[in-house]
Amino acid sequence: MPAEKSFHMTPDEFRRHGHAVVDWIADYHSRVESFPVLSQVKPGQIRASLPASPPAQGEPFETLLKDVEKLILPGVTHWQSPNFFAYFPCNASGPGILGDLLSSGLGVQGMLWSTSPACTELETHVLDWLVPMLGLPEKFLSSGTGGGVIQDTASSAALCALLAARERATNYTSNQKGCDGRIVAYASTQTHSSLQKAAMIAGIGVENLRLIEVDKNFAMRPDALARQIEADKRAGLVPCFVCATVGTTSSNAMDPIAEIARVGREHNLWLHVDAAMSGTAALCPEFRHLQNGSELADSYTFNPHKWMFTNFDCNCFWVADRKALIQTLSILPEYLRNQATESGAVIDYRDWHIQLGRRFRSLKLWFVIRHYGVEGLQHHIRRHVQLAQTFAHWVREDENFELAAPVALNLVCFRHKGGDAANQTIMDRLNRSGDLFLTHTKLNGNLTLRLCMGQTNTEARHVERAWKRICEEAERLTAAA
Amino acid sequence: MPAEKSFHMTPDEFRRHGHAVVDWIADYHSRVESFPVLSQVKPGQIRASLPASPPAQGEPFETLLKDVEKLILPGVTHWQSPNFFAYFPCNASGPGILGDLLSSGLGVQGMLWSTSPACTELETHVLDWLVPMLGLPEKFLSSGTGGGVIQDTASSAALCALLAARERATNYTSNQKGCDGRIVAYASTQTHSSLQKAAMIAGIGVENLRLIEVDKNFAMRPDALARQIEADKRAGLVPCFVCATVGTTSSNAMDPIAEIARVGREHNLWLHVDAAMSGTAALCPEFRHLQNGSELADSYTFNPHKWMFTNFDCNCFWVADRKALIQTLSILPEYLRNQATESGAVIDYRDWHIQLGRRFRSLKLWFVIRHYGVEGLQHHIRRHVQLAQTFAHWVREDENFELAAPVALNLVCFRHKGGDAANQTIMDRLNRSGDLFLTHTKLNGNLTLRLCMGQTNTEARHVERAWKRICEEAERLTAAA
Repeated sequence: MPAEKSFHMTPDEFRRHGHAVVDWIADYHSRVESFPVLSQVKPGQIRASLPASPPAQGEPFETLLKDVEKLILPGVTHWQSPNFFAYFPCNASGPGILGDLLSSGLGVQGMLWSTSPACTELETHVLDWLVPMLGLPEKFLSSGTGGGVIQDTASSAALCALLAARERATNYTSNQKGCDGRIVAYASTQTHSSLQKAAMIAGIGVENLRLIEVDKNFAMRPDALARQIEADKRAGLVPCFVCATVGTTSSNAMDPIAEIARVGREHNLWLHVDAAMSGTAALCPEFRHLQNGSELADSYTFNPHKWMFTNFDCNCFWVADRKALIQTLSILPEYLRNQATESGAVIDYRDWHIQLGRRFRSLKLWFVIRHYGVEGLQHHIRRHVQLAQTFAHWVREDENFELAAPVALNLVCFRHKGGDAANQTIMDRLNRSGDLFLTHTKLNGNLTLRLCMGQTNTEARHVERAWKRICEEAERLTAAA
Repeated sequence: MPAEKSFHMTPDEFRRHGHAVVDWIADYHSRVESFPVLSQVKPGQIRASLPASPPAQGEPFETLLKDVEKLILPGVTHWQSPNFFAYFPCNASGPGILGDLLSSGLGVQGMLWSTSPACTELETHVLDWLVPMLGLPEKFLSSGTGGGVIQDTASSAALCALLAARERATNYTSNQKGCDGRIVAYASTQTHSSLQKAAMIAGIGVENLRLIEVDKNFAMRPDALARQIEADKRAGLVPCFVCATVGTTSSNAMDPIAEIARVGREHNLWLHVDAAMSGTAALCPEFRHLQNGSELADSYTFNPHKWMFTNFDCNCFWVADRKALIQTLSILPEYLRNQATESGAVIDYRDWHIQLGRRFRSLKLWFVIRHYGVEGLQHHIRRHVQLAQTFAHWVREDENFELAAPVALNLVCFRHKGGDAANQTIMDRLNRSGDLFLTHTKLNGNLTLRLCMGQTNTEARHVERAWKRICEEAERLTAAA
């Protein structure tokens, strides 16, 4: 063969450029506090800086990295800033990033056990580790009838749970013959929007996801749930599923899982526990009471990519009866048949989620658990909860502010007593200042500020400064009035 | 604050460990040919080497990396080996890996434009770049009524297309009120299994996905499609969707898109073009005729993570009418409301797919296109197609083997003339030898070997050796007979 230009990056070039990218990331994390947390660009501004056409010839890698700094960074909202208090944490960490890098480097596609046995077995193993780590029931272990899988997000996990519930309630005929419009499911008015999306996708319809009213703490009312189920059954409908939430996104409300389970069992509902937001807290025994009743669940999910230092995407999803899930989602074309699968001795995770293909996500989760150790993870969860409780104390003590919901863990919902417009102004000014980023929700119709603690590197000084800046903006309002 | 043990990896530690991981990956790619391509472990073997419980205290990073080498690597099937000819390529490349590393390092969650404008705008921009790169119609550009989005896999893209079709056909009521069991969709018997899975998930039911018969080249027969649609309409059903495939997974068959489109238009069907397997070939003008008719499609998808050197996961999905997709999937809870979204001036990609959360996937795609340039990418596609055609020539010339399907691009379906058992034995022995990895399919009921060309580093010498090994195993069979 004659020598030819390969265009590929050689291993030696990869080494050199890879070191440069690692250094860039290390530097980025060192200087992340110097950027405005919320990107200040206008719509279209980033695109306007990019060439209209792709290059015909390849460009030097150095140019690409420079362009990340110059063209991309101004359009980044810094989720990894310790001054990020918005939405929910979406944590990266050194071991998480490097585990993910290994996944990219190995480049395996783990759709079947045989297409990389380690990809499947490490995942099963780490998800088994997490069961006692979180105080979850043994039925979720792969050694019994259950098992865990890494999904991309809690949205996908909720969809899989709802689909399995739909199938169980219709004797596994809906995936064959289609839905019949009589299937109904239940969640609270505060349940994450992904449940509504799942109902839309699954052909159940968002109107058939009953949003049950909540109590004064924004937790689902089991009595209201029971009444709705009974009414639906009288109307000839087929209740199949209820979702209980450990930490709603809006206000971190905790649904009474055990009571919901009791109602659900009477009617043979699939109970899905959505602990995406707060499940990580169960690493600490003192917080596990918040998910009491999970031992009655058919499925449970939480997001290491939120509060457990494992970079996105990494959602963990367990089922008590893996056969129900597999019977819901399995398809086996000839070109995927193989001896290991036919033997029944292995897990093929492609039957546990929506997608066929999957990357080696368990590496980053394994790295995070081993780097921190259980005690290291617990340390940070306790630290974040303590920081949130301290912040809540300051709010409680301040005459201009009030808490808007119980502070169960690491989310503080609060408001300035001046009303919606005052809170909107305070939030907009804070976010425009770039000093910190926080977001809002509505509780009982009132605009409410949310300060969510949990970014990997948030320390007391960041929370102190956040409160100082909030008070400054409140004073500026009062002064102007 | 008193100094305390942080447990976090500091930026300096990250730099050091990151260099070590980059070096490990560079070394891995240098020695990848030394491993058996298909992992030779037994079920449970990897798990048996892992400790039963997670560590209470953190471990040194060096230990983690050593364990990847010692415990994980034996369980890896080497998709990045140039001797990997199974299924389809799932390519990694230097720029792809490093773009993904930056995504992990930045750790942004791009669910909304405002949560990182660059994450959204770079994605829109690169997907606009790809429209002329692939010779796709202008209607898929974001400047018109359409636009592109990165999905995780073609399975998710197919599901989104089917959902949008379901909604358009039912006047956007199915996502509200649920399916009614009368909706039907169409694909060929050779269509990827993800379409069946999508029909199950979407509440349409796999029985309502009509698998249309194919011609002698395994391409859908438009006349059979027309007959089936008419029969379904007569039966009072609601046809909504047809999928045409550019390169089926089984045999790389090419559906006649233009004729399928003509039939579909008569009945107002949503036409989805699934070019997951072979769309990358359209980078070369001489191969674009294979997707003639795509200008009539409502949606189109292809996988840069297969044959375009962009590591998993990266699927590109375009729609001609983005409003149909958004109306199908949009949910807007209060805690995600923001000024940019309300202005209508920005794209919020969370309404373009199943999940809410999303990582900064466009970085790796941008890096790949810029590193190779359009000409570099074309070079490798032409090279792979040429290698496949050469291999097909050898098969054709050999009296013991025959081709089992046309070789349109980079997949060769062939068989030993000795029948199914002979082919199974040849395949099993080759795969157990570790020298190469190839898989099978069934065509006209006959077990058929598939040799798929397209791994980043596959060169003529690897293909020559593969053919030599195949002939050796064939001779061994003949000698034993």
